[in-house]
Amino acid sequence: MSELTRPIAEEARNGHRPRVVIVGGGFAGIHAARGLANLPVDVTVVDRRNHHLFQPLLYQVALAVLSPADIAQPIRSILRRQANAQVLMDEVVELDVAQRRVRLGSGAQLDYDYLVLATGATHSYFGHNDWEPYAPGLKTVEDAIEIRRRVLLAFELAERHMVEHGWHPPLNFVVIGGGATGVELAGAVSDIAQLYMRHDFRHIDPTKSRVLLIEGSPRVLGAYPPDLSAQAEATLHRLGVEVRTSTHVTVVGPGWVEAGGERIEAVVTLWAAGVQASPLGQMLGCPLDRRGCVVVDDRLNPPGVPEVFVLGDLAHLEQDGRQIPGVAQPAMQMGDHIARILAADLAGQPRPAFRYFDKGDMATIGRMAAVAKVEWPFKAHLTGMPAWLTWIVIHIFFLIGFRNRFSVFWNWVWTYFTFTRGARLITGDQHLPGWNHLEIQVDESDRGR
Amino acid sequence: MSELTRPIAEEARNGHRPRVVIVGGGFAGIHAARGLANLPVDVTVVDRRNHHLFQPLLYQVALAVLSPADIAQPIRSILRRQANAQVLMDEVVELDVAQRRVRLGSGAQLDYDYLVLATGATHSYFGHNDWEPYAPGLKTVEDAIEIRRRVLLAFELAERHMVEHGWHPPLNFVVIGGGATGVELAGAVSDIAQLYMRHDFRHIDPTKSRVLLIEGSPRVLGAYPPDLSAQAEATLHRLGVEVRTSTHVTVVGPGWVEAGGERIEAVVTLWAAGVQASPLGQMLGCPLDRRGCVVVDDRLNPPGVPEVFVLGDLAHLEQDGRQIPGVAQPAMQMGDHIARILAADLAGQPRPAFRYFDKGDMATIGRMAAVAKVEWPFKAHLTGMPAWLTWIVIHIFFLIGFRNRFSVFWNWVWTYFTFTRGARLITGDQHLPGWNHLEIQVDESDRGR
Repeated sequence: MSELTRPIAEEARNGHRPRVVIVGGGFAGIHAARGLANLPVDVTVVDRRNHHLFQPLLYQVALAVLSPADIAQPIRSILRRQANAQVLMDEVVELDVAQRRVRLGSGAQLDYDYLVLATGATHSYFGHNDWEPYAPGLKTVEDAIEIRRRVLLAFELAERHMVEHGWHPPLNFVVIGGGATGVELAGAVSDIAQLYMRHDFRHIDPTKSRVLLIEGSPRVLGAYPPDLSAQAEATLHRLGVEVRTSTHVTVVGPGWVEAGGERIEAVVTLWAAGVQASPLGQMLGCPLDRRGCVVVDDRLNPPGVPEVFVLGDLAHLEQDGRQIPGVAQPAMQMGDHIARILAADLAGQPRPAFRYFDKGDMATIGRMAAVAKVEWPFKAHLTGMPAWLTWIVIHIFFLIGFRNRFSVFWNWVWTYFTFTRGARLITGDQHLPGWNHLEIQVDESDRGR
Repeated sequence: MSELTRPIAEEARNGHRPRVVIVGGGFAGIHAARGLANLPVDVTVVDRRNHHLFQPLLYQVALAVLSPADIAQPIRSILRRQANAQVLMDEVVELDVAQRRVRLGSGAQLDYDYLVLATGATHSYFGHNDWEPYAPGLKTVEDAIEIRRRVLLAFELAERHMVEHGWHPPLNFVVIGGGATGVELAGAVSDIAQLYMRHDFRHIDPTKSRVLLIEGSPRVLGAYPPDLSAQAEATLHRLGVEVRTSTHVTVVGPGWVEAGGERIEAVVTLWAAGVQASPLGQMLGCPLDRRGCVVVDDRLNPPGVPEVFVLGDLAHLEQDGRQIPGVAQPAMQMGDHIARILAADLAGQPRPAFRYFDKGDMATIGRMAAVAKVEWPFKAHLTGMPAWLTWIVIHIFFLIGFRNRFSVFWNWVWTYFTFTRGARLITGDQHLPGWNHLEIQVDESDRGR
């Protein structure tokens, strides 16, 4: 553990309030900020966006169950009553670790005594950024709205095409990546096609859609125990999702995907395969792992900079020989830990080590099924409806404002009992990348329905 | 009244089901389609968008109380159980009245026996379309999201500017046009600044914002009786809105408006002044009024084309020497009347005349105030809280779909009792047209805060 070069405890006794700059208003950043409410420090949260996002439910916005406002809340509102916190909607463009200063996109500079970096991760196309227009990923509200637009538009364009030509390009939806996001997206697309759209069209048959989930490794949900992976795959099969494991995607084009040597026509392709850390990590000049995450010790510091903390998905932290996963729970816990460390500094005590307390993890697979690896308060592997009920309770419980909790719950109840998706709006333009290609290229034998 | 040239009644007896093409899924189009559910006709609703919009509440989406999904519903869902109706998300690009055929953007052609045009109106910049980027209007979900983005972003940019420079451009919001939309927007912007943002910022004081409402005619709400206009103006003053009547806007620029010979700095400008009919009216080749509305008789036909009906905001219909206003009530009633006319045709009876039954009209002015001209079931002019309660009950009642009604009601209750706006998300980019101009141009004496 490195030592602070400044006598923070002594300075604080002399009336200096340490300035804490937190970059990123995700789970880690918000938990860090709230945890500092009762310490004699001044907190500034900087985020490019004005809202905190409940990321685990973002796929439900993408697939038209929830509205963005159900799972997002202005960071300003979350911290409005915290007198020692302020929020700036801005972007950090420069880190000066030596001078303890960050420069923002607007030109303003913020001096800090402590810097907390929690800017998370974004999708990675493994060097193929040209694939992005053909296969959007899911990280922001805008991403979710774009995915929603594409999936809903595909059905509309097919119906329109059917009226004009008497046939339509096959409704193949391809999801690349079989982690939690990929499994959730595939299950939800299948739900839309099989359940929610069933009675809405007069010419096409949405239930004839195909959903393909492509995963490079031998099993889906690779971070879960093998029995839960197998269960997830079985559930996906039951929903009609074709799962192709050990299959590598080699090219993503407009309206098609090349995977395992085969070319697959795809009316919509979604990307859930790769993740890379926010570029802010590079500015630190500290060691990074291959995804760009900053390697930190168990005090959450990169080597040699005890006044800088890196949390959440941006951090690479090993515990018991395994890397702590980039999901919500560890991010929240790391955020909470910041207050403990700063309290120790202010008291002139040694900093407590961070230890991730794994309560488990879960992923939904379509309507009313899920897999859950429960670690606390008991150990269990849950599947099917019990896992799904656990999932729904936990996710509602952890939603930050009460209004959202209520509204989300209501939307779910409504959706699950009426089979009517509430937020099925198409906004933006009516262009689907690759549609023209599909209209022209599909040969007669392949023609849908 | 013109006569149908085809013997519809006789054809129907011989088993021909008349094909009704309805263009536009607004109030008029949806009411027309639903009214035809039990007649032996085949209905096709064509709309560029996949959703019906409850337009009277759109300003609440723009000002972050409601989510788009609260007030919009897929047209397909509305008509899913109506076996004789189909929906095409497409655009009419050509009308062939002689051949009774419409051509769609996708290339498909639809033959019709009856054509119902209900494509409504859009904003008009009176020939100054170059003003649009600086002063967006409010007609679509995208418009509402853009207005929301600009209003919320203005506060964020001001806070950011304050941190960097110690001052910020004055937060002047200018609303052009004092009709119902303008009054509602001005009241809602004032609410945001005075009530909802009050405790959210540490450096700027949102309550120091100015809201200006500029109206060319001598009074706001010109379509209402003078006493209600006066009341509305008094309520606006109480909310801190500066109302300038008899003031003409001569130029709208980035970050400023020129009105009544004065140049007004404006961090956000909103356009609620002019309306023009959808261009579809022109394709008909029938007489139009100066706003492009199609002049129809009391059977809702343009002269000489009894198989074509024009409804809602696209229609110009006079009753008792006055033009029926372009609001929701007459649009719904015209839509409902289509079924009566077609039933008469199918029975070989003369067509019944349409008569608008005016139940009244209302506009809200900020939180918990409104003006209402009630015509039915009693005649009254309501103002203040009673008018607002009437407004809320009627608007919830008329929302199509129970889910939305419930969700909207919940959002209102939550917002009005907690002063917390639920849907305060900024999506899209962080550019505010004119902001740079304001940063540079404002002279020292004018500096806000």
